[in-house]
Order: sequence, then structure tokens, then C-alpha cells
Amino acid sequence: MTATILNGRELANEIQNEIRAELSNFIEQHGITPTAAVVRAGDDPASVSYARSLERSFSKLGVGFQLHTLPESATQDEIVATVARLNGDLAVHGIMIQEPLPKGIDEAAVKGALSPDKDVDGVHPLNTGRLAQAAPTGRPAGVEPFFIPATPAGGLEILRRYAIELQGKLAVVVGRSTIVGKPMALLLLRENATVIMCHSRTQGLPDVCRTADILCGAVGRARMIKGDWIKPGATVIDFGINFVDSQMCGDVDFEQAVEVAGMITPVPGGTGPMTSVMLMKNVLQAVRRQVG
Amino acid sequence: MTATILNGRELANEIQNEIRAELSNFIEQHGITPTAAVVRAGDDPASVSYARSLERSFSKLGVGFQLHTLPESATQDEIVATVARLNGDLAVHGIMIQEPLPKGIDEAAVKGALSPDKDVDGVHPLNTGRLAQAAPTGRPAGVEPFFIPATPAGGLEILRRYAIELQGKLAVVVGRSTIVGKPMALLLLRENATVIMCHSRTQGLPDVCRTADILCGAVGRARMIKGDWIKPGATVIDFGINFVDSQMCGDVDFEQAVEVAGMITPVPGGTGPMTSVMLMKNVLQAVRRQVG
Repeated sequence: MTATILNGRELANEIQNEIRAELSNFIEQHGITPTAAVVRAGDDPASVSYARSLERSFSKLGVGFQLHTLPESATQDEIVATVARLNGDLAVHGIMIQEPLPKGIDEAAVKGALSPDKDVDGVHPLNTGRLAQAAPTGRPAGVEPFFIPATPAGGLEILRRYAIELQGKLAVVVGRSTIVGKPMALLLLRENATVIMCHSRTQGLPDVCRTADILCGAVGRARMIKGDWIKPGATVIDFGINFVDSQMCGDVDFEQAVEVAGMITPVPGGTGPMTSVMLMKNVLQAVRRQVG
Repeated sequence: MTATILNGRELANEIQNEIRAELSNFIEQHGITPTAAVVRAGDDPASVSYARSLERSFSKLGVGFQLHTLPESATQDEIVATVARLNGDLAVHGIMIQEPLPKGIDEAAVKGALSPDKDVDGVHPLNTGRLAQAAPTGRPAGVEPFFIPATPAGGLEILRRYAIELQGKLAVVVGRSTIVGKPMALLLLRENATVIMCHSRTQGLPDVCRTADILCGAVGRARMIKGDWIKPGATVIDFGINFVDSQMCGDVDFEQAVEVAGMITPVPGGTGPMTSVMLMKNVLQAVRRQVG
């Protein structure tokens, strides 16, 4: 058996077309170009390359993009001051802070300085809290509007657009980062999946993974999840972006997994391309809220 | 086999003694009586009786207690105004809003009006978000200080004081309320348990429960969890407070479960008595932060 490939690149293109249409309507109606600002301190190579790729995607569609860089030696006050200035800048609708921040900087303080209304990558604890409190999809959310981190939002969007049933299914999320694993678990819970949150201390991880109807890898360890960890026919969502011999690979051993899974996201070309389009969707959501 | 009873009443007494000592030190040092305010609109009988029981527990130890009641006909603005007044009242250190609020009141708006620094039952989304983002226990939390809802905090305290190993264990939480199920799942995750979040849409719930080393009932359905849903020797934490023929019982069928489980909280006398002491601990934490 060979799994169906969940083609994130194709989906991202489809969503880009939707964004293009929405964007031109919005600009026509309001005369405002939705704009995101990225704040970075230092020159971490992965961050530099991620910012470039975001700039390309945003510019291609006509979403405004600003990069605000500070030196590696920037103090916390300087970074927070940059964030505060962007919070107050009416021409900026979304703000993303790139990690890692320089050593010694309190990341919680910097994230906490973000205006929750411009926090388009959903890193402010107020947005996390609203996601955690939100009622299941389909019911009134029971919380104020919030932003969902773009990467797990993209994973969920893949599941939705491929019409993969989630309600009552057993979903296993491996990894509990604030930016991917935990929000993905909360998103799947909102879709009425039964969710197992796994991590480095989980005992018998392969056995736990084998129970999954939906298996999400969000650990950042190259090809850790083997083919025989996967229940035949399961859906596999791979959030890993790892490099082995300068070749990109996911958290799942794709060669093995594709023979067992029912559906699987490849790396590259799976969840990766979805992140920037989900960010743009969040920027659009932000600007709509800000113009009222 | 008969399970060891996890005696919440006894533990609560023990913690009351600790609070008494801490409180008299605090008052001596600062000349301030830590004080909590409860806000209620309407006369829901369970809310009235809960407020009375809180008042008794608080007064017994010398923690200040105020009850602010509004009529069932109170508007949202009136309730929010009461909360705002208490936010600004330097003599009030913790605020709890009783649910249910009258029909038509937006609970999210009322909770959101709470000062997060006085939100001693951890219902504000900022506190939920910090809990969700917090690193595992034993590492720097990586978030600003936060309050944990008292009921799940009490459940965790029972597990801790009975020295029940959590790391790497499989914990199943049945129920996903904002005030018990979800925060309990997040707390167990912070203790490095592998956590399964179950709910009304979970398929094969008895089988899922049977995998649990730690099984938490937080659904509010009398005796739903049967003896044969429990793995022999498992630890059972029952958060349910239900009434059948005016007799209080939990979510777990205690008569059956006590023959199978290794350890179990009874209802009454398990998690219930822990709630008010954990609230008092949170009030003490709040006042300490407020006096700096």
C-alpha cells in the first residue's frame, strides 16, 4: 500500500488564490494594505532564511511586509520598545517575533509585550488561553476572538481540506512545544478528537503512536517516527523541519511511513508551505478586526 | 483488593494548618488581612451553598471574605462594574465570579474583566494561557506567574502529597471543562505524564480509561465510570460532585472502583475539601504578589 500524499504546496497555492481575491476586495473597500512586521534580534541563519521566505510569500500576494532587525547585542528593553512602537503603529496590523531571541532575553516578557490584537502567530498567552478555553468548533466559542499559531493552524487546515474525519478519532501529538505541539492538541480537541499528548518522557511511545488514527509529529527530531509506529491506514501530519546532510526531512521516516499510512504530509511540501499562508490569513483577520 | 483511600479531608486539614501559620506570619509582617471577594448574580441554590461553605472555610482560618451579590436581573455592565470596582480595591486581593451567571450575560466578557492578578480561581484566559505555555515542573516556567483553578490544583496536590509517581505515566482525563478537565490535563502534562483528553465524543471510552495509570473523572455524571473501566491498581481522582436521591456521589462508581483501583478519592471527602484550601493558597499567593 502507498499512502495518499497530503499535498501542502498545492493547498497553499489554492489558499493563496483565495487570499489574493480577499485582499483585493479588502484594499478596494478600505484603501489599506494589510501589513505584517517581523522583529528579529541577531542573525540566526534559520531565522534570516525564514524571514526571507515569508517576505517572498507576502510580497507575491501584495501583503505588506516589514522586517525590523536589531543587533544580537540588543537589550530586552530595546526589543520591547520596538514591539511597543509597532503595537502603536496604525500601518502595521500583525507582528511576529522571531525566535531564538539573544541569550539572556526573557522571551515571555517580549511575547507579553505584543498587543494580543496584532499577535498573528498566536504566541501571546492571552491568545493561547482563549484557544484553550474555546468551545468545540461549531458551537459559540465562548471566548473573545483569538489567533491560532500558523503552523498547527496549517496542519488542521490540511486535515479539513482533505475532509479527514476527526470527531471521535484518536489523535496522537508527539511533542509539546508552545508553538506547535500543545496548540495542535488543543485544536484537535476542539474538533472532538480524543487527544493523546506525548513527549520525551512518554513511556512506550511506539505503542502509543500505533493507536493513532491521526498521528502528528512535532518534536524536531529527524525521522524519529518509524513506519512500524504507524497504524496501517492512519493519517500522518509531519510538522518536523530537520536537516540531515543538508537535506530537509521531517520527524517521520517518510520512506517507511508512506508504505503504512493511509495519508501523509511529505517534508518538504506538506505542513511547511501552509505556515506562511495561514500567517497571511491571520494578518487579514487582524486588519479586519482593527478597522472594525 | 481494596483501594487505599486518598483522604482529601485529612489533607485539607493538614494544609489548613500550614495556611494558618503562613497567614499569621504574613499578617504580623504586613498588617494586611488577605481577603477574597466572591461576586454572584442571582440565587442559584448550588452557588449560594458553595459561597456559604467558602465563607465558613475562609473565616475559620482568618482569611477575609466578602460576598457581593447582584440580583438575577443584573445587567452585564453592572456585573462588570462590580468586578472593576473590586479590581481597584486595595483591600481585596482575590476575586471569584460564581457561575452560572444570569442568562444573556457574556461570561467571557465578565471573566475578561477580572484583573489577572486577582483571578485566584484561574478563569481569566491570560492565566489559562500561561498554564498552557508553562514549561514542565522543575524547569523555569518561562511565563509570568499565574493562578491555577483551585479544583484541579487540589487534585494535583492530592497526587503530590501521596507521592504518586506521574512522570511517564499514562493519565486519562475524562471531561474537558475549562475549570477542571482541561487545566487538569495541562497540569498532568507539566508533571511529565502522557495525557489523554477524553470527552463525550470519545469512542470506546471504557477501553481508553482502562489504559490509565492515573484516571481523572471530570464530567459531572453520577457514577458514569464503572469498576471495569479501571485498570487494576490504577489511581483514581474523582472531581465529580453529583446528587442522586439527594446523596452526593462522584463521576466514578465508588463501590465498584474501590475493589479495582490501587488508590481512589472518595466523594465526598476527596477532591472537594481541597478546593477551598487551594483557593486560600491562591489568595495568599495573590496578596504576596500585590504587596511586592
